[in-house]
Amino acid sequence: MTKRTIWLHPEGSAVQIVDQRSLPHELSIATLRTSDEAAAAISEMWVRGAPLIGATAAYGFWLGTLEALGQKDSKAWLEACAARLLATRPTAVNLQWAISQQMDICRELAFEPKACQQACLANAQAIVEEDVAHCKAIGGHGLALIEAIYRKTGKAVQILTHCNAGRMACIEWGTATSPIYQAHAAGIPVHVWVDETRPRNQGARITAWELAEAGIPHTVIADNTGGHLMQHGMVDICLVGSDRTTALGDVANKIGTYLKALAAHDNDVPFYVALPSSSIDFSLQDGLKEIPIEKRGAGELSHIQGWSEEHAEILSVRLTPEHSPAVNYGFDVTPARLVTGLITERGICRAEREAIREMFPDLSAGA
Amino acid sequence: MTKRTIWLHPEGSAVQIVDQRSLPHELSIATLRTSDEAAAAISEMWVRGAPLIGATAAYGFWLGTLEALGQKDSKAWLEACAARLLATRPTAVNLQWAISQQMDICRELAFEPKACQQACLANAQAIVEEDVAHCKAIGGHGLALIEAIYRKTGKAVQILTHCNAGRMACIEWGTATSPIYQAHAAGIPVHVWVDETRPRNQGARITAWELAEAGIPHTVIADNTGGHLMQHGMVDICLVGSDRTTALGDVANKIGTYLKALAAHDNDVPFYVALPSSSIDFSLQDGLKEIPIEKRGAGELSHIQGWSEEHAEILSVRLTPEHSPAVNYGFDVTPARLVTGLITERGICRAEREAIREMFPDLSAGA
Repeated sequence: MTKRTIWLHPEGSAVQIVDQRSLPHELSIATLRTSDEAAAAISEMWVRGAPLIGATAAYGFWLGTLEALGQKDSKAWLEACAARLLATRPTAVNLQWAISQQMDICRELAFEPKACQQACLANAQAIVEEDVAHCKAIGGHGLALIEAIYRKTGKAVQILTHCNAGRMACIEWGTATSPIYQAHAAGIPVHVWVDETRPRNQGARITAWELAEAGIPHTVIADNTGGHLMQHGMVDICLVGSDRTTALGDVANKIGTYLKALAAHDNDVPFYVALPSSSIDFSLQDGLKEIPIEKRGAGELSHIQGWSEEHAEILSVRLTPEHSPAVNYGFDVTPARLVTGLITERGICRAEREAIREMFPDLSAGA
Repeated sequence: MTKRTIWLHPEGSAVQIVDQRSLPHELSIATLRTSDEAAAAISEMWVRGAPLIGATAAYGFWLGTLEALGQKDSKAWLEACAARLLATRPTAVNLQWAISQQMDICRELAFEPKACQQACLANAQAIVEEDVAHCKAIGGHGLALIEAIYRKTGKAVQILTHCNAGRMACIEWGTATSPIYQAHAAGIPVHVWVDETRPRNQGARITAWELAEAGIPHTVIADNTGGHLMQHGMVDICLVGSDRTTALGDVANKIGTYLKALAAHDNDVPFYVALPSSSIDFSLQDGLKEIPIEKRGAGELSHIQGWSEEHAEILSVRLTPEHSPAVNYGFDVTPARLVTGLITERGICRAEREAIREMFPDLSAGA
């Protein structure tokens, strides 16, 4: 098992990633040698998850600085490279955040290719190390919530999660899963309800695989099931990630998160969102109006990929009638009023403007 | 295309059904020759949907009366037959309703096989004809709701439905789809958001197929999507069916219905449940506590069936990691407080004890 989800190729001049499309059936490693390959890996979801998208974009931009060496106008080249990477996916703010960091660095170095190369590589590595540290810290803060439930009930803590906000969405640890990994390591019994997360099944494919690898008790459920479980007292806490959180605490996350937040609210189940501050977009207020929601291809819904025991291979099958259209929105926005709290690397705060500002006075100052 | 979903075999002594498992890829007709075959068709979901389950059980019991001819103790045989049919699926009340009608008839005839045969066949046929009439009447009442929205907005009425409460869940017309068919026939423009309805995909497979056949504009969406659509004003009305509705108006329907009802409530979208009175269980009050919720095999979630273009056949593929458990609840209960109204064959009433009692004084009298 690879420990991280992205790393520098041992020979340099390339990065390697886990190609997440074939999970859980195969664990395959892909090498990205160009900024275009990095952009494709993001848009075609070889990698996904806000923090990992940010890290891949940062490395992808660094690959662009290598390519800039052969260009007449390195500034124009890098601006185009930034634009191509930015256009891959619209919802996760980490993409913008990582690319604008890299562009700021290049601007300061007057787009001198050699200097940009070194500085952008160092920055990509710093982004990666910071994400690991932030996810670990998120886990520590979230662990306290899980521990408190366990102390009260004395039973395995029942956690519901949606999509994959695990280590495969980050570098290590994950955001929503970090408290779970740390609780498990601390000997607190936990059980995770894993939302399948249609249409791309990141829960059933990736979160379940991660938890199985870590030996953490879990059960895969259809996305339709969480409400019923919460009505019957079978969920102690919901823990999800975020692709972009506004200054007011509205949370964009994988489509369907809002429905779980409604059910949690209706049944007095605490609903927490785990996120590094890199996912907060301090420039936005009303998430429903302002966060761009990605619309992906209908084929992701009409067809699905799985393991055919009969043919001993991964196959795609069509689920819908041939002439029925389908639509595929990637995310929805959970209004702050439904969020019990944000678990960040600095601690837990309410999903409200003042609380977020107090937690991150340095980051929110400019906005 | 077959017009109905179940019918007497032209040669008698058997019934024929559409085997819904291979939809939308193949339309296959199956013949049920014994009460055991009828029980298997219900439990293995060759047929499904509360009204069609009731009709299949009624015909299945009639097949049992044919078998009773060769038995020493026809009463014991028919009691066992009733028990076997009743054990197939726990949630839809129509099953109990149809079987107890047939048993009452046999009891009155002192379980005399010849007399039971004729009377039970006539009753099964009456159940079928009544369902057709009720579904048609439901459509007329629901049509008025759709028409009122169209008069107000002047635009295609956007309807969200979950699972299949269409003609394939009934004999003809469907419950939730009957108003849609009738609006379409009346020239009112409609567009239906079809929830995929994991894990068995009755929406993506059956509702989409029905609507495509009828030429009604529709779009398949992941179950996760409805909340987002409602937040953005893209749904005018939700129309779903019911497997069992209590005297207080709590509604058991396909798992995930509750989540859509929460989203409708949160966004002021009217949420209507269409049901024939045969789906009302006047003996129950609190749906959450009293309605038995079916737990089906985990394989329905871990594996999925679809059309492989590569192999030109229907194939099953595994979606989840090999060692990850899955759980599969078939239904959930939507509390009456989230239901705008019940569309019945006698008209529309609020989901409240008094309103239901006023609409059905004859049926609620005994309870």
